[in-house]
Amino acid sequence: MAERDQLVVGIDIGGTGTKFGVVDADGNVLYHGYVSTKKHPTVETFIDELSEEVTILIDKAGGTGRIKGIGVGAPNGNIYTGTVEYAPNLPWKGVIPLANLIKAKLKLPVVLTNDANAAATGEMMYGAAKGMKDFIMITLGTGVGSGIIANGHLIYGHDGFAGELGHTIVIPDGRLHAGTGKKGSLESYASATGVTLTAIEMLANSKDPSLLRNVPKDKLDSKAVYDAALEGDKIALDVFEFTGKILGLALANAVMFSSPEAIVLFGGLTKSGEFILKPTRRHMEENLIQVFQNKVKILVSHLRESDAAILGASALAWD
Amino acid sequence: MAERDQLVVGIDIGGTGTKFGVVDADGNVLYHGYVSTKKHPTVETFIDELSEEVTILIDKAGGTGRIKGIGVGAPNGNIYTGTVEYAPNLPWKGVIPLANLIKAKLKLPVVLTNDANAAATGEMMYGAAKGMKDFIMITLGTGVGSGIIANGHLIYGHDGFAGELGHTIVIPDGRLHAGTGKKGSLESYASATGVTLTAIEMLANSKDPSLLRNVPKDKLDSKAVYDAALEGDKIALDVFEFTGKILGLALANAVMFSSPEAIVLFGGLTKSGEFILKPTRRHMEENLIQVFQNKVKILVSHLRESDAAILGASALAWD
Repeated sequence: MAERDQLVVGIDIGGTGTKFGVVDADGNVLYHGYVSTKKHPTVETFIDELSEEVTILIDKAGGTGRIKGIGVGAPNGNIYTGTVEYAPNLPWKGVIPLANLIKAKLKLPVVLTNDANAAATGEMMYGAAKGMKDFIMITLGTGVGSGIIANGHLIYGHDGFAGELGHTIVIPDGRLHAGTGKKGSLESYASATGVTLTAIEMLANSKDPSLLRNVPKDKLDSKAVYDAALEGDKIALDVFEFTGKILGLALANAVMFSSPEAIVLFGGLTKSGEFILKPTRRHMEENLIQVFQNKVKILVSHLRESDAAILGASALAWD
Repeated sequence: MAERDQLVVGIDIGGTGTKFGVVDADGNVLYHGYVSTKKHPTVETFIDELSEEVTILIDKAGGTGRIKGIGVGAPNGNIYTGTVEYAPNLPWKGVIPLANLIKAKLKLPVVLTNDANAAATGEMMYGAAKGMKDFIMITLGTGVGSGIIANGHLIYGHDGFAGELGHTIVIPDGRLHAGTGKKGSLESYASATGVTLTAIEMLANSKDPSLLRNVPKDKLDSKAVYDAALEGDKIALDVFEFTGKILGLALANAVMFSSPEAIVLFGGLTKSGEFILKPTRRHMEENLIQVFQNKVKILVSHLRESDAAILGASALAWD
């Protein structure tokens, strides 16, 4: 079959949910699907449901014969072994042979990597980093992930686990990360959970009126903080300033390490636009030594959120 | 002339002094030289003295005809432009076209890079990282430098300045770095100056007796702290514990970024052996998430200190 007629499947496994799609050679996601990740306490029932749903999409797309392979992005995913190992944001503990489990069900070649690495590949092929040889992709979602491209290639490290910027310690002895037990990691502040915690803390430590006091705790996310900031809410603006201070410091450290042309941000937090980008940029510049100042672009991914990770994961399957 | 008969020159420019040598194809440093860096307020007089001294070595080695080229390692050295830009630890400010200045005097091809990048190349060719494809070299000298090897290649970044791990912020709002004006960088704690400052601070903040109280301030370096630690001196041991805590945290962050097989340490501080390595290793492991634990070797360079940087710099000149 000609390459043009072939399709691939991209699967993006997140802490909350798993998105997948059938993708053509031009990077169009022809069919989309979704299953919950967190409702499955064991990986076996997750794989059962995922395989069923993916099979439905494959059938819609013309059957297994048209599918060249499956690319999977997952937290702590390892391209060398096809396993997910000790992923703090997934419900399954230990070493999970995800690639083999999916392969056994769907009888197709499976390539697996870190979800953020997959997203970085997607940005390099189709997105904001098209044509760049040195950039860092940072995903600000349930967790904080990163993919580092240096000299046009993903850095995998000696064991396939490079790019865990979200777990680097920004504030020594800072906020506890429930998943890892470590204190003060970037993820404990700049993830969805982190922003909510910051808002709760700031509301508790202040007597000032705030629109956020009317928001139920389970709705207190970066979207709610953004809505309040639009109204000029002081505490909402403080939440972004605080988050941007920590994110900016982490970005400065990353820049001084691998000197990228740009940092591409992706995920829920980026929807708050300049409210989060402005303090992030300012604190990044403040922490950079002169040789790096006013050089590094902070870009927001312009790929559709539902497609970016799927596209990135699917890109792996073409090789 | 056959490659075997050719020689190269390696020059390592440090904040205090500049070492250089004539090197053969087997990595033997045949002739050594040294000039002071810090006594030269202008780069012109520095280049004059350096060129004179290098010419003497070249003549000893059989004359310019035998020299294939010159490799230079310098702080903030840029392989793309041959310049040193805004190096906080050098006496000359702004952008210095060092490669061209040396080339104009010595009439030989000159390749220049970051001093730590040069050291990393030396370790990969002749040293503790021989055969490794993913490692990080960290030089603990007057400053703290780093060279990152990923997939067998140095990471230069989009502008040639990657690998400034010494300037990453480990303790937000921590100790002021006089050269950069930034607070809490790794270099402000784990450099020679940093260790001395820590000892001074700990002596001032404690009333305990200590052998270090008898050491004149200008002799209070990691060697003096080591000598006191050998005698069981409590404050000396605390200096290493504190330094190792910060260095270990920085190493953990670097590991979670690029997942190296090993970290190779080099420089004055490493001579304190297990006094500094033990706390460094412990704090690194404590800050790593599980997937990285008990995997990464911390190695000490076994190249002769006087040769390692010269060898690394010279290696550039063979290409």
